[in-house]
Amino acid sequence: MSERLHIIPHDHKVKKADRAVLHGHRPAIVWFTGLSGSGKSTLASALEYRLHRAGLRTYILDGDNIRDGLNKGLTFSDADRQENIRRISEVARLFVDAGTIVLTAFISPFKKDREVARKLVGAGEFIEVFVDCPLEVCEQRDVKGLYKKARKGEITRFTGIDSPFEAPEDPEITIPTHLLTLEGAVDRLFSYISKELS
Amino acid sequence: MSERLHIIPHDHKVKKADRAVLHGHRPAIVWFTGLSGSGKSTLASALEYRLHRAGLRTYILDGDNIRDGLNKGLTFSDADRQENIRRISEVARLFVDAGTIVLTAFISPFKKDREVARKLVGAGEFIEVFVDCPLEVCEQRDVKGLYKKARKGEITRFTGIDSPFEAPEDPEITIPTHLLTLEGAVDRLFSYISKELS
Repeated sequence: MSERLHIIPHDHKVKKADRAVLHGHRPAIVWFTGLSGSGKSTLASALEYRLHRAGLRTYILDGDNIRDGLNKGLTFSDADRQENIRRISEVARLFVDAGTIVLTAFISPFKKDREVARKLVGAGEFIEVFVDCPLEVCEQRDVKGLYKKARKGEITRFTGIDSPFEAPEDPEITIPTHLLTLEGAVDRLFSYISKELS
Repeated sequence: MSERLHIIPHDHKVKKADRAVLHGHRPAIVWFTGLSGSGKSTLASALEYRLHRAGLRTYILDGDNIRDGLNKGLTFSDADRQENIRRISEVARLFVDAGTIVLTAFISPFKKDREVARKLVGAGEFIEVFVDCPLEVCEQRDVKGLYKKARKGEITRFTGIDSPFEAPEDPEITIPTHLLTLEGAVDRLFSYISKELS
């Protein structure tokens, strides 16, 4: 086989641009960032449903499919939190290379970690969505009961309580979830993304 | 938004089966295993090209996109080699969940690591391809000059030289690359996969 190998030139490799042609759209990371309870996963899920129905190739990376799989064993230490976001960023990059619109839904509180993710992909391939909801509203929702635990000191280094959230300075989109309906928020995201990636 | 949130039921989440409908085929991991120089990457690349031209959604995980990205920093210790394959397996699982036919091209010499990968996905979603080529032939090809270095002791724990390769006992497909042309090998793989996943 080694002789025949060279008959097929190297540029027969399937490239990102070939996948874009097959899929009918360009790929991107849609990076949701915001406090716990701000609505990242809900938004990502509803947006994905909308994109999928429109025939676009999508995938969501979130705690449900990352925590007990790829990032099993990582702790809540600063180093492991950074490694957590680093691996998510690298996997998101692979999905972009595969031609997918990959939505990530993680608090991702630190600017420098999000900048690392942005730099892994090309210009226009990173869409940062700031899910902007006041701490008071998130804490009142407290869907998972985590704020209560953080206030009691049962959880430490909880973003918004005893660990900072560094809001994006220049996100592609800001979604104030305390002011918009889910439908309105998804409309805005869908319209931006389908325009940018078609 | 939290009130409206519950208007959209949870089963609107996009599932693997929905992606299969959109893509027109079922997903799988096509796991190439074999000695260095046996032809794994060449086969994976040529097979992907063929699948892509047929309109199937594909992606390759190999050293080129994993080593300096997701698995940057891992050493050649036994523990890190196992972690290397574990992460690749978890990422492959995510691609299957996303509806992709994901081809992995790594030596992956240990049965138990490959079994871990197999168990991460459903029945029929793991296609193990044993790239079966005698050590003498691989060593003679020595495309990357690694066998020479291993024989000189400049590289240690090199599979086939001073580290074992545990051949699959019951792979879905065996490709003897020293006996087949690349075209013949790809025909066999394409025919199996397009039948199994359509």
